[in-house]
Amino acid sequence: MNWDATRPGETETSLPDTTNAGVYFIGRIRTPYPTRNECPRQGMSDGPICRVEVDERWRPALKGLENYRRVELLYWMHQARRDLLTQSPHGNKGARGTFALRSPVRPNPIATSLVDLVGVEPGALLVRSLDCVDGTPLLDIKPDRCSYSPPASSEG
Amino acid sequence: MNWDATRPGETETSLPDTTNAGVYFIGRIRTPYPTRNECPRQGMSDGPICRVEVDERWRPALKGLENYRRVELLYWMHQARRDLLTQSPHGNKGARGTFALRSPVRPNPIATSLVDLVGVEPGALLVRSLDCVDGTPLLDIKPDRCSYSPPASSEG
Repeated sequence: MNWDATRPGETETSLPDTTNAGVYFIGRIRTPYPTRNECPRQGMSDGPICRVEVDERWRPALKGLENYRRVELLYWMHQARRDLLTQSPHGNKGARGTFALRSPVRPNPIATSLVDLVGVEPGALLVRSLDCVDGTPLLDIKPDRCSYSPPASSEG
Repeated sequence: MNWDATRPGETETSLPDTTNAGVYFIGRIRTPYPTRNECPRQGMSDGPICRVEVDERWRPALKGLENYRRVELLYWMHQARRDLLTQSPHGNKGARGTFALRSPVRPNPIATSLVDLVGVEPGALLVRSLDCVDGTPLLDIKPDRCSYSPPASSEG
């Protein structure tokens, strides 16, 4: 499949000349999917265990994450183009707006995924239900909002 | 409150010299909270209606979003520092790792928020349950994963 071809009904835009802020890649995600062709269309909760590697600099920030069973991962879909306003997924009739899709193709190719945390190693998490390509850059890890309460304030 | 002071028990790191990718601000979020001091600790589903303004360039990408009642917003918490590995929220005893918190302070200050879509105007969405400061830069809009199915493929 040619992932980068523009299909009938799709609309491109020219991207702005400059970006407005920069992100750090804080690690990478190891999955059984070497290319986009092997990736499932959606991660399944009974899918294979994937390994989320966190760079050494950021590892102290994992403290306490082992207390959560579900975590939210943010990652950078580095192979996706960013300039489509409407898309016709997989040859479907009728294009939809990029913001009405969860396609990797979007102005800021940031994915959010809720995963089951099945293990914590020094510098890595073992999780289920990812659908991204092997080597995908990691942006963030957060406790799942459903199981998270902000710590109580001692300052009112 | 001094939001940028380092509290007892918190750990700083030096940030990398360069970022790895750039994001575009695609609009901004208008809320009733002019500064961080007025922001609620968590957005509530019965909170005030907020206005998500989308820049003209990206407006065609909203097509079809009106069919969803819940959307996920990604935004850039532009006032947050990025260099804390552990944090002691609001004077709590015992620091936790940044990735075990949903604090705005994180290497990539990207928030994810699920909101009720209560209206669509040309170039703007009206939503409930945001807790961010007025003027926060918008990064992305996606249909809520719970109500979203990837479009069927005609290519198998």
